[in-house]
Amino acid sequence: MKLLKDKIQNEGRVLSENVLKVDTFLNHQIDPPLMQAVGEEFARRFKDAGITKVITIESSGIAPAMMAGLVLGVPAIFARKQKSLTLIDHLYTASVFSFTKNESNDISVSKDFVTSEDTVLLIDDFLANGQAALGLIDIVEQAGAKLAGVGIVIEKGFQKGGAIIRDKGIRVESLAIISSLANGKVEFLGEDLSK
Amino acid sequence: MKLLKDKIQNEGRVLSENVLKVDTFLNHQIDPPLMQAVGEEFARRFKDAGITKVITIESSGIAPAMMAGLVLGVPAIFARKQKSLTLIDHLYTASVFSFTKNESNDISVSKDFVTSEDTVLLIDDFLANGQAALGLIDIVEQAGAKLAGVGIVIEKGFQKGGAIIRDKGIRVESLAIISSLANGKVEFLGEDLSK
Repeated sequence: MKLLKDKIQNEGRVLSENVLKVDTFLNHQIDPPLMQAVGEEFARRFKDAGITKVITIESSGIAPAMMAGLVLGVPAIFARKQKSLTLIDHLYTASVFSFTKNESNDISVSKDFVTSEDTVLLIDDFLANGQAALGLIDIVEQAGAKLAGVGIVIEKGFQKGGAIIRDKGIRVESLAIISSLANGKVEFLGEDLSK
Repeated sequence: MKLLKDKIQNEGRVLSENVLKVDTFLNHQIDPPLMQAVGEEFARRFKDAGITKVITIESSGIAPAMMAGLVLGVPAIFARKQKSLTLIDHLYTASVFSFTKNESNDISVSKDFVTSEDTVLLIDDFLANGQAALGLIDIVEQAGAKLAGVGIVIEKGFQKGGAIIRDKGIRVESLAIISSLANGKVEFLGEDLSK
């Protein structure tokens, strides 16, 4: 997705060989028209998949997931990273290990909102080690829902998450795939792996 | 806002005299067309205020804030509830006390994204005791930005937050104001306080 790749090149800041900061448009400040374009692109790629629910994880996945849901005409659900006072039981829960924080956290989705009747599109801002996506996939499986695929805004193609999920036979559509952050420079894969 | 009030009456669940659960469309599952209508209504009410940035707090504020930003043609920023690995300094920070959790947490916004040149619209999903809004107001003041007002999806009019903020001379626009949750029933104020 050229608009997104241009934005990453122009505004992304490479902090290390593994860390790309994109908080001018995705992770802290949000660029609403870009999120609209991202949502439209996810909807275009999955328009024939019979999606009934979009699911993401708070917080940075919410903007692209909601825009995808808006275009697809379905609700968007964000998995909670901790149990809140008004969501105490009746949950599907999965554990997600964060390599950056070196800790595990539970994510949870109410059993009210994903069922065996649903066909689910998972959306997230980043795909790196794949732990967050695997947690969402676990929840979709617990619910007995059909998984149509995973839509990722930015995939770090040099980390293992994309391969782990594709090796399960799951469709992964990443709008930008980064092949390297070496030497302070963002390099993209010429062709998306997903095509 | 009738569409929102109807949704609250039809889908909101009164858990106690203080707690309204609206996780079918706002706090966990998001109704994208409703969020679009909410964003349009905030934009309509603040269209002459010269807004340059919309600011909210993760996570439930993100959907309405992004839609308001989209319609107003400005970026939306979500304050972080904890410092992340890639946002370690260069922050405006405020402390927010949660009565429901009985604990204080810091919220923070990068100094890159709100400056003395900005006119800010603050958006949040709920206004109850006002602590979250006061934290955001503190950050706007630290940045030396102009505060155009506060846009709230659901105000609990029987709690003190609305009065505290209006008493500071700050414009508060709430799209639905609940006067009571007594007897398991949602009652709205006949007229919005903000009009």
